[in-house]
Amino acid sequence: MSASTALLTDRYELTMIEGALRDGTASRRCVFELFARRLPGGRRFGVVAGTGRLLSLIADFRFGEEELRFLRDGRVVDAETIAFLESFRFSGSLTGYREGELYFPGSPILTVEGTFAEAVILETLALSVLNHDSAVATAAARMSIAAGDRPLAEMGSRRAGERSAVAAARAAYIAGFGATSNLEAGRAWDIPTMGTAAHSWTLLHDDEEDAFRAQIAAQGLDTTLLVDTYDIRTGVEAAIRVAGPGLGGVRIDSGDLPVVAAAVRAHLDDLGAVDTRITVTSDLDEYAIAALAASPVDAYGVGTSVVTGSGSPTAGMVYKLVARQDADGGWVSVAKASADKASTGGRKSAFRRLREGTATAEVVAVADGFEPLATAAQHPDARPLQVDLIRSGEIMPGFEGPEGVRAARAHHLSVRAELPVRALGLSRSGPAIPTHVV
Amino acid sequence: MSASTALLTDRYELTMIEGALRDGTASRRCVFELFARRLPGGRRFGVVAGTGRLLSLIADFRFGEEELRFLRDGRVVDAETIAFLESFRFSGSLTGYREGELYFPGSPILTVEGTFAEAVILETLALSVLNHDSAVATAAARMSIAAGDRPLAEMGSRRAGERSAVAAARAAYIAGFGATSNLEAGRAWDIPTMGTAAHSWTLLHDDEEDAFRAQIAAQGLDTTLLVDTYDIRTGVEAAIRVAGPGLGGVRIDSGDLPVVAAAVRAHLDDLGAVDTRITVTSDLDEYAIAALAASPVDAYGVGTSVVTGSGSPTAGMVYKLVARQDADGGWVSVAKASADKASTGGRKSAFRRLREGTATAEVVAVADGFEPLATAAQHPDARPLQVDLIRSGEIMPGFEGPEGVRAARAHHLSVRAELPVRALGLSRSGPAIPTHVV
Repeated sequence: MSASTALLTDRYELTMIEGALRDGTASRRCVFELFARRLPGGRRFGVVAGTGRLLSLIADFRFGEEELRFLRDGRVVDAETIAFLESFRFSGSLTGYREGELYFPGSPILTVEGTFAEAVILETLALSVLNHDSAVATAAARMSIAAGDRPLAEMGSRRAGERSAVAAARAAYIAGFGATSNLEAGRAWDIPTMGTAAHSWTLLHDDEEDAFRAQIAAQGLDTTLLVDTYDIRTGVEAAIRVAGPGLGGVRIDSGDLPVVAAAVRAHLDDLGAVDTRITVTSDLDEYAIAALAASPVDAYGVGTSVVTGSGSPTAGMVYKLVARQDADGGWVSVAKASADKASTGGRKSAFRRLREGTATAEVVAVADGFEPLATAAQHPDARPLQVDLIRSGEIMPGFEGPEGVRAARAHHLSVRAELPVRALGLSRSGPAIPTHVV
Repeated sequence: MSASTALLTDRYELTMIEGALRDGTASRRCVFELFARRLPGGRRFGVVAGTGRLLSLIADFRFGEEELRFLRDGRVVDAETIAFLESFRFSGSLTGYREGELYFPGSPILTVEGTFAEAVILETLALSVLNHDSAVATAAARMSIAAGDRPLAEMGSRRAGERSAVAAARAAYIAGFGATSNLEAGRAWDIPTMGTAAHSWTLLHDDEEDAFRAQIAAQGLDTTLLVDTYDIRTGVEAAIRVAGPGLGGVRIDSGDLPVVAAAVRAHLDDLGAVDTRITVTSDLDEYAIAALAASPVDAYGVGTSVVTGSGSPTAGMVYKLVARQDADGGWVSVAKASADKASTGGRKSAFRRLREGTATAEVVAVADGFEPLATAAQHPDARPLQVDLIRSGEIMPGFEGPEGVRAARAHHLSVRAELPVRALGLSRSGPAIPTHVV
């Protein structure tokens, strides 16, 4: 796999650059905005994720010899375009919502300013990263709300592409999960990793007690034993027989969880294992987690549903040209008028209006062409939502790597606390706050 | 991003190895099988994809200094396990369905034989790759059937994680798509790439005609012009005014497609552009494609729905221990008995029974423990489905790289032709042929 990200791009971006280099429009200054027309799945809010990853991927967006050879040999673009790409380096600016921030329909999540050529070329990469990561983070936030104070771990790597799995672990952590099973997410992003054991571990051994004994020998008494390989009741008995009542936890991965959890709790208590925790992990989503709120469950492990966005695997964001220079260097607001896909031209600035600490509206101010962004002073009751991410090609510090993940998680938890109560419901609904375009 | 794939792994795989190294079970020979309990989304067949990618990723499954440092510093496993991982290299065997092959519930898609340690460690990676790629290929095959002889291109990169997008383009091509917009898929897998232009291309220019003129100057008269930025009727007029009736094609990305396609066809014909093709690309899935069968559409571009598995973004395959050695070296069939997740122990061999060239059943023969696989001679009316992929750590030739993709696509198209007619329906149903476990 090439380390360059330059070909994670749709072919038309390069052929448009070819055409624009020929007719002179490639150097027209442009403003592109990335936003969502709606929140998928009847969600009440969205969570921005992927921004920190995107900045690093843009830094790796260079056409090396291998990439150029492919474009040349495959006659994707002409020699002049190859020469342009050879020295390509994004020198424009990115402004956008902080990673972890909430978003609503029409929120200008990312604004890219640069020449047409350097801004259009980032379309696919920016959308790939933000659409995937935000879909996971949005689902994860709902699960995190449903789980309340109970620990919540992401363990869905096996149900996602092998690299998307790492990004999904990262997005879930930003949106409130406490840990992941994915080791690469631990290495690359400094996210706490966790794990118990698989059914194969029990089946490998001649009997269940052997398996439990070996796990405790290696992992200590605080480990979590998987008790449902054969029969949960005999599994719990074997676990406590081997470990004693000081066993850390048991995991249940099958059955009707509210019923089974209650039975296992009673059984553990009978055996004196009153502090042994119960972790449940079978096909959980936000609804199943909410349904377990009154059950004696101590921790949740979530797989498929979080990495696939719980029914909405992509956030459906789009990347649109909203303003550009004309032949004389003047700025023009632009927007397409296509049936059911019309958008609003002009550069946007965004604020969240708050009343006594609770969000009441998303305010999106539309500039004519390329006026300066509205300032916070003009919206004194509102928090400005956009920050500089890249200035003239230079990535701003604090957003990339593990540092960026920690900041994004902290920011998310802080802004989630501003949501009105109605935002916390799980049923299909409209956005929790209105978007006012002014 | 690290080139090693060794940490694309759930933590519990390494902690199980730690426990197994301590109690001596790590070296027990094991057979794991990867299979699907059911076909998601009421599908009538599944398509295996990802196998060729998986083989290369297993070749890169080595713990380098960076990976080991993380495991050591994070105290994920003990020093003995670190030493084991340091020299780890998969030396077992993989047998499985060819890439592109069809599968049904219970089909033994992949069989991994080796020590417990070397087989359990591949669980997450194997599932990540096959679950993602097969979900895409299965959806893609349905779209390919619905499209019939009309060209079908994948253009969903922006709605998938940036690396999963490349894998999705590859899976869609294997399942019958003819091209992709994703350039890295072109470079890495030699898949034909295609593209037209975005709305931003039209908006960049002072008027639509300028945009069309510039695109034709760069791409030639055979290019496809996007005509719905402002108004489709005036867009078509501008396109033919600029290009003349010899224009290659127009693309429509919005509106009620059957109605709009018919109107555009009539309009093009009126203007004398009787050979100008119509490509449609707005939120298509297999149902929308089928609904356009009688419309004057010449080509389809599919985005979101194919890369997200059209409602089923993961194939839901699992990886289970089915046989292992005991302490004396004898073989034992094993299976868990968990509520609603029970599986069948023992190594499986698989055949597709055919009558006059049409598939009638999936035959899965279960061995007791580790008996030799049933041979084709025992099933003379059936085609054996498993081939050697890795023998004692050596990857068999022909499956990796572009060569493997070509072979997988050819194999898929050939075995799809064996399906009974009822397999081609799009509505929710059961598997097209029964699985007989014998």
